[in-house]
Amino acid sequence: MGRVTARRRARHVTADDVVARPETLVVEEPLEIRVNGVPLTVTMRTPGSDVELAQGFLLTEGVVSRREDILSVRYCRGADEDGLNSYNVLDVTLAPDVPAPDVDPTRNFYTTSSCGVCGKASLEAVRLISKHGPGDDPATVRAETLSALPGKLRDAQKVFAATGGLHGAALFGCDGSVLVVREDIGRHNAVDKVIGWALEQRRVPLSATVLLVSGRASFELTQKAVMAGIPMLAAVSAPSSLAVDLASQSGLTLVAFLRGDSMNVYTRPDRVKN
Amino acid sequence: MGRVTARRRARHVTADDVVARPETLVVEEPLEIRVNGVPLTVTMRTPGSDVELAQGFLLTEGVVSRREDILSVRYCRGADEDGLNSYNVLDVTLAPDVPAPDVDPTRNFYTTSSCGVCGKASLEAVRLISKHGPGDDPATVRAETLSALPGKLRDAQKVFAATGGLHGAALFGCDGSVLVVREDIGRHNAVDKVIGWALEQRRVPLSATVLLVSGRASFELTQKAVMAGIPMLAAVSAPSSLAVDLASQSGLTLVAFLRGDSMNVYTRPDRVKN
Repeated sequence: MGRVTARRRARHVTADDVVARPETLVVEEPLEIRVNGVPLTVTMRTPGSDVELAQGFLLTEGVVSRREDILSVRYCRGADEDGLNSYNVLDVTLAPDVPAPDVDPTRNFYTTSSCGVCGKASLEAVRLISKHGPGDDPATVRAETLSALPGKLRDAQKVFAATGGLHGAALFGCDGSVLVVREDIGRHNAVDKVIGWALEQRRVPLSATVLLVSGRASFELTQKAVMAGIPMLAAVSAPSSLAVDLASQSGLTLVAFLRGDSMNVYTRPDRVKN
Repeated sequence: MGRVTARRRARHVTADDVVARPETLVVEEPLEIRVNGVPLTVTMRTPGSDVELAQGFLLTEGVVSRREDILSVRYCRGADEDGLNSYNVLDVTLAPDVPAPDVDPTRNFYTTSSCGVCGKASLEAVRLISKHGPGDDPATVRAETLSALPGKLRDAQKVFAATGGLHGAALFGCDGSVLVVREDIGRHNAVDKVIGWALEQRRVPLSATVLLVSGRASFELTQKAVMAGIPMLAAVSAPSSLAVDLASQSGLTLVAFLRGDSMNVYTRPDRVKN
């Protein structure tokens, strides 16, 4: 449980030389999330902060909206064939008044709630399930504060430094103070861990915060920010068309290509002060 | 259909200046894959090479193993509420003797076939469904040939150059010749497009080839290489523990951190010649 890195032998090959040496790798293991005993999804994740991950996933999928919606989260014993606890299966028990996720039995699969058959339908699905939404958040952040965030995330990404294999996500106050940093082999998992932390802390909706991701801003990550009521999403790399469209619809400030002292602000630029 | 890039206005902010300008973004749209009319999965993808994507997905999930297993692939008309063809829903009709994907009705969701409740179970699942496997492939590649591949991929990634938002995957012969390059906002989709191309060309199992990915080597991407019978997977960035374990079990040569003239070879180093 909780092993974040593992060692494997490798041959390091250069033009002149071959050296056998142990390498530190990031661990990847499946996590099955069950709700009221019913399997809902499996994600390949880096062990650690699993309870946060499950809670963040359920929040960003619209299953829960506050800490009180969840009665308990616990690892299932006997989930694997040896009857041992693999620490790879979590069961989330919802409060009695919270409906279990709606799985359409005619569709044979559970996908993220916002999957539609076109971008417009995906946007509409998020609008329908979103309970928090950043639209009215009056928060503002100085551009120079934003420019300092990637460095703060890198400083906190200890496992990345060792393995080069992890995505990072961090939540900051509008003054640039670090609230929480999480890492995972899956970008979406790192964000779910951050948001699950906030749910536990009863800080959702996350007004007056900035979510920074170490990679690109996809639709899925943008949806997660919107669902948690975060007013600003910043990405080190590029956004997608649908991410920008969702940010525009939701009143989320979307910043991308945040590098050095420059950035692109795609939506709600009124929250970025020069 | 097939729009790969889109334009959105953004503000480019630097320490001294703010300029409003149009930006070119990579398009992200959902694609629903149906098999024999039954919805199987939805993936967020960049439009283009959709038929390859669907075919590659079905091959790497173990649903089909050769071109003849698929009778037809076509876009569904009337899949959205306006009755228009969104070009975001593909229906794959299997040959009569090919069983449809086994969806366990007690689990309520379809995940990739290799999702288990622990890493060991995930490895075992791939072993069970894999029909091709690279284990016996006698192919060898020179280290200097490998070192030249990332540059060839970058040269071919035209959309990445415009948007910065795309993952690339490419298949090479053992002499470094480019067989096919595909791009997508999803890393797994780029690989599925490459493998779907090979299925159409009746080149599966893909003996004597190298699959290069522009990012990390996760379990999922390693599984795809194994399922297509590719003997060597090379990644520009880091591998995960489970990717290395799967490569080791399958006899796949896994190369990562392929940068400049150096690389790490984690498994089956006999295929890399100095």
